[in-house]
Amino acid sequence: MSLASPAAATAPRFRLPQECPPPVFEAVADARRGEVVLDLVLRHAGPRRLPVRYELAGAHGAPVVLVAGGISADRHVAASDTFAEAGWWDAQVGRGRAIDPRNCRILSIDWLGADGTLDAPIDPADQADAIAGVLDALGIDRLDAYVGCSYGAMVGLQFAALHGARLRRLVAISGTHRAHPFSSAWRALQRQVVALGALQCDERHGLALARQLAILSYRTPAEFDERFAEAAVVENRVRAGAEDYLDHCGAKYADRTAPTAFLRLSESIDLQALDPEAIDVPVTVVAIAEDRLVPVDDAFALAERLRGETRLRVLRSKYGHDAFLKETADIAGVLRESLAAATGGAA
Amino acid sequence: MSLASPAAATAPRFRLPQECPPPVFEAVADARRGEVVLDLVLRHAGPRRLPVRYELAGAHGAPVVLVAGGISADRHVAASDTFAEAGWWDAQVGRGRAIDPRNCRILSIDWLGADGTLDAPIDPADQADAIAGVLDALGIDRLDAYVGCSYGAMVGLQFAALHGARLRRLVAISGTHRAHPFSSAWRALQRQVVALGALQCDERHGLALARQLAILSYRTPAEFDERFAEAAVVENRVRAGAEDYLDHCGAKYADRTAPTAFLRLSESIDLQALDPEAIDVPVTVVAIAEDRLVPVDDAFALAERLRGETRLRVLRSKYGHDAFLKETADIAGVLRESLAAATGGAA
Repeated sequence: MSLASPAAATAPRFRLPQECPPPVFEAVADARRGEVVLDLVLRHAGPRRLPVRYELAGAHGAPVVLVAGGISADRHVAASDTFAEAGWWDAQVGRGRAIDPRNCRILSIDWLGADGTLDAPIDPADQADAIAGVLDALGIDRLDAYVGCSYGAMVGLQFAALHGARLRRLVAISGTHRAHPFSSAWRALQRQVVALGALQCDERHGLALARQLAILSYRTPAEFDERFAEAAVVENRVRAGAEDYLDHCGAKYADRTAPTAFLRLSESIDLQALDPEAIDVPVTVVAIAEDRLVPVDDAFALAERLRGETRLRVLRSKYGHDAFLKETADIAGVLRESLAAATGGAA
Repeated sequence: MSLASPAAATAPRFRLPQECPPPVFEAVADARRGEVVLDLVLRHAGPRRLPVRYELAGAHGAPVVLVAGGISADRHVAASDTFAEAGWWDAQVGRGRAIDPRNCRILSIDWLGADGTLDAPIDPADQADAIAGVLDALGIDRLDAYVGCSYGAMVGLQFAALHGARLRRLVAISGTHRAHPFSSAWRALQRQVVALGALQCDERHGLALARQLAILSYRTPAEFDERFAEAAVVENRVRAGAEDYLDHCGAKYADRTAPTAFLRLSESIDLQALDPEAIDVPVTVVAIAEDRLVPVDDAFALAERLRGETRLRVLRSKYGHDAFLKETADIAGVLRESLAAATGGAA
């Protein structure tokens, strides 16, 4: 296989195809979207020519901050004048927020595989290469900061290891250098639920149910205890107090997600495996004590093994893994502190 | 509905039908099995005539200890000369073990619903009534001890509340007065997986997968981290390190369990809801700090609210909820201490 040959090993894993036109921006505005076509050498699936969609918002010439979320997040991080619909992280990104588009440029991508057309194992390192390819296309030498949450933090660690010269500081929130074996088992069963649905040609049903299972890993018993009533008999069946809520979340997710995208990005989390010792850029490691998906002990291990300047911030939250979406004030505090260090206070 | 009428409210919820023959024992041996037919008034399904299968082992005339396990446990608690196959709790029950058939009589039942023929909501209190009916049939006035694990502990608490005059001491291991809303959600999703399988007429597949999900709630990340390797790409798919093990467990469970039995007994756990203040018999509450299914805080609340003499024992175990099956020495210590109090050292 060509990947194993010395020539392939030294060749870059990403590049802009010569015959492709340069990226096209929309009319000047406070945010723009584009698509870069890259030739990537995927670690588990070989060479592929793939589009990578990005969004770039904020002040021209300002420090560049890449923002990346979980596997269900996309390039639309926050609402802007140009793209007014809600983003997935409006709580932290926007005017007056911790990441302020008046003071920095905010770059983000849709994950490789997010549109469901790439049906192959995707390594988190492949995503890091895709980001490097987008930087090339946009003429951005270096990120002033990379802020990643969950899967985005895993990819950020890969970017720091593979492309460290292009990064001033990484903020890795609720994602570490490895997938925990218990969490991998949990995700594997979610994928099996999708497969069970597919057997009856109803992947959507399976996907909605898999999402509900995933939500249990994102939240905590403490939150559910506050929020949901005890089970009750309804029409001869027992129904848990949280079932209506979970049903709703599952259906909403299945409406907007291709089953293949879920399967391949879920798998991708499980392929996370890097040596923190390979990273020497400054990293802020942010962990949640109650996180049931990314155990806080893994964040401790990560912080201990990084080679560069390392900061560790441990937050408490009844929202567990989802704290990065819910604990607005605490996360903003960590971001302001970290970005002040990376961008000279500009963000 | 007759259950709501005053007459129904004061009528006993269980009795031996007059026209039924007395229970038949097998030839004299160190253990015997039988079946009692009871008229029960199920709390969510009304009057039913149901068989209750039991096993009784050990010394004639000795103190009687009822032993009850989780929803997948049955009346065959331990191997005996008469029934030599392995039981589900040979680690604790047997000659020289914490519960020794040379010193006590060991009574156990198959749960109502365990054979899959009772397709109705089953309250844990219904199980307690069934046990009282079996005691009547066997001419046993009072249990010297009831040792229950998981669902068996929940039923034990119901028995203590409803039939406290017939019990000297309860040992409730890893089961409390309520189902935690988060754990109920987890079980509800397992039941939905069985339903998804049923849609394609493959309940067995769904059941096997539901069991795998249940196992994640019985164990802990710490155990999986010690035991399983990281995920790997196998034939173009990512496979978690624990997947072979979980597959095996799921298939084995599906081979021996009727889907309806799983569904109705899983539901039954979620119907657990009693006031500990209704219990004034002595109780030993045993909890596992790492239990992810029955949070240790619920055991603390139970111990604080019981009205009788209460002992609390908190163990540590990487096996979480399954510690009662795995932590042989620690559980034996608790049992010996508790049974000495209940049976005057006879057990």
